[in-house]
Amino acid sequence: MGAQRPVITLTTDFGTRDPFVGQMKGVILNINPNAEIVDISNEISPHNIREGAVVVGLSYRYFPNMTIHIVVVDPGVGSCRRPLIVTTENHYFVGPDNGVLSMVYSLEREHIQVTHITADHYFLNKNSTTFHGRDIFAPVAAWLSKGIQVRNFGESVTEYMRIRIPEPERPTKNTIEGEIIHIDRFGNAITNIKAELIAPSDNSGNRTRIVIKGKESVLKQHYSEAEDRELYCLINSFGLLEFFTYRSNASELYNLQVGDMVGIIRM
Amino acid sequence: MGAQRPVITLTTDFGTRDPFVGQMKGVILNINPNAEIVDISNEISPHNIREGAVVVGLSYRYFPNMTIHIVVVDPGVGSCRRPLIVTTENHYFVGPDNGVLSMVYSLEREHIQVTHITADHYFLNKNSTTFHGRDIFAPVAAWLSKGIQVRNFGESVTEYMRIRIPEPERPTKNTIEGEIIHIDRFGNAITNIKAELIAPSDNSGNRTRIVIKGKESVLKQHYSEAEDRELYCLINSFGLLEFFTYRSNASELYNLQVGDMVGIIRM
Amino acid sequence: MGAQRPVITLTTDFGTRDPFVGQMKGVILNINPNAEIVDISNEISPHNIREGAVVVGLSYRYFPNMTIHIVVVDPGVGSCRRPLIVTTENHYFVGPDNGVLSMVYSLEREHIQVTHITADHYFLNKNSTTFHGRDIFAPVAAWLSKGIQVRNFGESVTEYMRIRIPEPERPTKNTIEGEIIHIDRFGNAITNIKAELIAPSDNSGNRTRIVIKGKESVLKQHYSEAEDRELYCLINSFGLLEFFTYRSNASELYNLQVGDMVGIIRM
Repeated sequence: MGAQRPVITLTTDFGTRDPFVGQMKGVILNINPNAEIVDISNEISPHNIREGAVVVGLSYRYFPNMTIHIVVVDPGVGSCRRPLIVTTENHYFVGPDNGVLSMVYSLEREHIQVTHITADHYFLNKNSTTFHGRDIFAPVAAWLSKGIQVRNFGESVTEYMRIRIPEPERPTKNTIEGEIIHIDRFGNAITNIKAELIAPSDNSGNRTRIVIKGKESVLKQHYSEAEDRELYCLINSFGLLEFFTYRSNASELYNLQVGDMVGIIRM
Repeated sequence: MGAQRPVITLTTDFGTRDPFVGQMKGVILNINPNAEIVDISNEISPHNIREGAVVVGLSYRYFPNMTIHIVVVDPGVGSCRRPLIVTTENHYFVGPDNGVLSMVYSLEREHIQVTHITADHYFLNKNSTTFHGRDIFAPVAAWLSKGIQVRNFGESVTEYMRIRIPEPERPTKNTIEGEIIHIDRFGNAITNIKAELIAPSDNSGNRTRIVIKGKESVLKQHYSEAEDRELYCLINSFGLLEFFTYRSNASELYNLQVGDMVGIIRM
Repeated sequence: MGAQRPVITLTTDFGTRDPFVGQMKGVILNINPNAEIVDISNEISPHNIREGAVVVGLSYRYFPNMTIHIVVVDPGVGSCRRPLIVTTENHYFVGPDNGVLSMVYSLEREHIQVTHITADHYFLNKNSTTFHGRDIFAPVAAWLSKGIQVRNFGESVTEYMRIRIPEPERPTKNTIEGEIIHIDRFGNAITNIKAELIAPSDNSGNRTRIVIKGKESVLKQHYSEAEDRELYCLINSFGLLEFFTYRSNASELYNLQVGDMVGIIRM
């Protein structure tokens, strides 16, 4: 890991009111006092594996190479689901084998190596049944950050659980069907539709219509280009189509929810 | 404190919306730029001394030896209640003398040394009446983390305030009465009943019944052993009896609250 | 910036549920692994520039000299409003030119130097239109913390946007009219009226009446001097007049809100 302070991130559904996250940080610092711990989010909706997968999938690339990402949304804790280390070209991920790393698998395809963690001498508590975040994932991440090689934690595996992170579909040549995958704090509704699906560089003079809830939405460049409470859209900082209203909460005003369909029609 | 970065934790009811916690961290870093500051929780319910006592009591042992824990739930700030440093075998605690360290006192019995902080040249503001977290406890913790000896902050005292942290009672030989002491983010209800009270190693063939709200609850090993919305229980990661439902909020479904009675009956 | 770890603070309306703040921290650590990042608050009400201005204005002085404060409440992100570095005698501020640094301008009057950030080779993404916190302000702060001189980021400017941070008025010689500027987590209502306006050191025997919502409020020294649910006031830890009730939520009990008028009358 070099001489520099290794970075460990947290993406969990543990919340910030209970001391769960604080205890994980204590366990990490007890093993590696040199670790730099950063919260990505500890407010994933309880048990929402898909939301955890999207949040870490949208975020990990902004961290330094060799960062270790702990991802714990784990309703099956204590059952036979396996604890994993996932190694990609530039990052490490530590979490349960329940699909919470699915977006990482999709984005890093050829570079994935998955290890089933079995070396329980690295655990805080070998008999932990309800809090693997603190008893398994935090200490494994801390030992990893101290330079213990991945192969020392267990054997490589080639099968691991993926959940469906919805991808846009193309039912006809000129139609794309995507959906809302995240509502942010401002009420903006982020879709799974990438910028290149909307504005392909052609010179055909075709027009692209963006339709949600039966109405067309106008594409803007940035939020304050809008000036009223209509439902607009733009390409956001992740390169994804996003719906918004001018300085108010689009999700509340237009009753937008994760899973709502979005259509792109070229005419 | 050695060459390593000293760890300072925070357990407060200051919330995360107001800048109170940020200001405390600024004060600490101004005195000791080398300190590593970790939040245990800043969302203790306002003025709830008992909740603060339980949260720090369940958490401090997961931190490195010599960690300094700042604990501020302090409705009497500015009155004559004393500021204290509490030294245990492996940890330091800094907070008001109002009972918020009661669970630490119980757990560390013989190893407790309590100091009344009077050396106000270590304070940020000697005339502070409303925010001792920033003006007294943060700077005292920071100076402590720089290696100032505890005796320099004031005199030892032998009397200090304790509040009742409920302990299970045993009204008859075969009956234990405990209660719910914390509801966590998932709606799980944590009791004060320790594992050893439920499953004592005897061979008498006696059966243990766990009763809450007039109904028996079945003991499981981990959360996903349950498969329906019944109210189950297990021994949690603190070694305490905890009630839960399968992937939903037990506290809401069964109207469980802090203080609700739990009975253990051996038959 | 010296050998010591440079401190970077965050004051934003990004919340803690979405990964926006985590991504900013990743970007900072990628540029300067040595940075110490502290949250002042990431729960400024969405788009509330005035609230962000007050929160950072009340807080920055508690941080070490040379701290870099990132302040992002930025409804106009992507429009032509400029990104700024503001240098004061002891601190740096990085944020949008929309008034969110107005309280800093007021407090630091003669020591202000304002730079329009144009050197886009320091940006993460030159074409960012929706998330300058991550793409512009975080990397600029990180490069600043590595010792890049302010002049390298752009030209000095002498005009920049200020919003009205309400100041008390004095309609007659013996009357002061202030207002509530912040409601904290405890429901305490902080006003813009400084201590010296209430208790000037004169010997005239004049009495000062403090009036809110048509009723007089009694001035106390600290919170627990009160013993009932009346609406009391005191001088708080910022040296400002603040209304409270004994161990309960004054804002809810008395329907106090930001903007409510407060009168001080000398008789």
